[in-house]
Amino acid sequence: MKEMKICGKKADKLFSRGFGRREKNCIYLSWVEALYLVEKGLIEENFERILKKSSSQLSSIDIRYLVYRDLRERGYVVRVEDDHFVGKKNYSMAFYPLSDMDFFQPEKLLSLEMPLILSIVDGDGDITYYLVDLHEPQGNYFQLPSKKTVAHFHGRRYFVFEDAEEMVRATYGKDEGLFGHLSIWEAKYLKEKELLECENGNLSREYEVYRDLRNKGLIVKSGFKYGTHFRAYENSMEEHSKYLVHVISEKEELQKVSRAVRVAHGVRKTLLLAYIKEGKIRYFKVAWIRP
Amino acid sequence: MKEMKICGKKADKLFSRGFGRREKNCIYLSWVEALYLVEKGLIEENFERILKKSSSQLSSIDIRYLVYRDLRERGYVVRVEDDHFVGKKNYSMAFYPLSDMDFFQPEKLLSLEMPLILSIVDGDGDITYYLVDLHEPQGNYFQLPSKKTVAHFHGRRYFVFEDAEEMVRATYGKDEGLFGHLSIWEAKYLKEKELLECENGNLSREYEVYRDLRNKGLIVKSGFKYGTHFRAYENSMEEHSKYLVHVISEKEELQKVSRAVRVAHGVRKTLLLAYIKEGKIRYFKVAWIRP
Repeated sequence: MKEMKICGKKADKLFSRGFGRREKNCIYLSWVEALYLVEKGLIEENFERILKKSSSQLSSIDIRYLVYRDLRERGYVVRVEDDHFVGKKNYSMAFYPLSDMDFFQPEKLLSLEMPLILSIVDGDGDITYYLVDLHEPQGNYFQLPSKKTVAHFHGRRYFVFEDAEEMVRATYGKDEGLFGHLSIWEAKYLKEKELLECENGNLSREYEVYRDLRNKGLIVKSGFKYGTHFRAYENSMEEHSKYLVHVISEKEELQKVSRAVRVAHGVRKTLLLAYIKEGKIRYFKVAWIRP
Repeated sequence: MKEMKICGKKADKLFSRGFGRREKNCIYLSWVEALYLVEKGLIEENFERILKKSSSQLSSIDIRYLVYRDLRERGYVVRVEDDHFVGKKNYSMAFYPLSDMDFFQPEKLLSLEMPLILSIVDGDGDITYYLVDLHEPQGNYFQLPSKKTVAHFHGRRYFVFEDAEEMVRATYGKDEGLFGHLSIWEAKYLKEKELLECENGNLSREYEVYRDLRNKGLIVKSGFKYGTHFRAYENSMEEHSKYLVHVISEKEELQKVSRAVRVAHGVRKTLLLAYIKEGKIRYFKVAWIRP
């Protein structure tokens, strides 16, 4: 994007401060750079006129500008790319400006170089930054119940009347004394391991994530109290769970992600958004940061 | 539901402890009562057999039973109704057993007597209780900007170049010095009040809630950082916002509600779920409780 051309000494000075792309003794400024320099009084132009002009050429110039301006004000020198900004000096991080009405789109993220930073302008005009990166969760717990048992489904859960204690010792289900009960994920998983005899229906994509995490040595329990599908422990249930895991689809409201990030941040857990792509599960780690 | 009949002295004793419905010198026990008494050894029967029998007659007997059992263990004496339990003595509160895979259905709630308690069994078999009641939020802030101004839309937000300071003083928009900017809700509202000249598109149902809250004297700002549509202040922005407000549709995942409750609880705000029914907005106050 080369929207405004400046030449001569002024160009040298602005370029040295991280503005524009040089061509011979001129620089070409992108719209957000031009707006910023006009706002700061470093270029004599009418801000409103430039805003209108840029707005007619670029969608969401407002969101882009507010993010660019915020980064500059925080001391970041950033280069302007098509739909994002890149740290120019030691930090080589990409900032993607979005509005709070936009979406979290895993397919698009997978096509980009991560880590990256979603830079989200909310209704108040305030900006929230989320660091997004791919993550491979790994646990160290591979115990299974030592005996096979039988379970029956009674609406939502599976009930067992033998060896519930042994099941619970291996982190599956709940023991109530006279009986034990299991979630549909737990029952299906133990059945696949040939440690449970029961009838299963078809399970949703959440089960694929449950199985994947269990196979990776994590202890997987309900995330309901946190409003996510699962919580997961790396080593044992004696310690706090490390992860909150939520299974996402191709297009999720950023607001939904924001709510999950907020919960995870509040309880100091790592939020993973699990996305299933052609049978393979990718985990996006999303964390609130202040750049 | 009269699933098991017991007569004579035993019936008197159980009835005095809050079990069953009396008819002459007999009592009729519901399935969950029968299961509980069998589990406690107060009726000699096979638990598994009763569970299977009840399960063939009632959907989600497991969820019902786990909630009934939990309430009893907590010392609640509850009467069993069709799809809920009612406190029998001083507390006359209705407990609705649900699984974490069920939904928050405002239409259904509106047909019931509130307050009520959603009693939700999660994947671990643990139970979370949410107190739900209708609530009428009311604020004391009715100031508007004292001057009319002009705004232009530049993608996601409205920009003003005059009187932004006055706008912000009246809690609308953000003032950046050279310019101010407003959310689409703010712009539309001020336009309706004939205090802003701008072009509006059609807004979603979120705007109806924004307008309603503003008309009720609340200061309404973005709830994005909390993952909800709005946060709202009763008197001024000097104090903490009292409400988190989320606009819901006819059927919402309980998990989504749980996430919002968790966030609101963590920051000590009141969660309101706003439901628009034939133009009228009803606010459900949802709070996590331990009964």
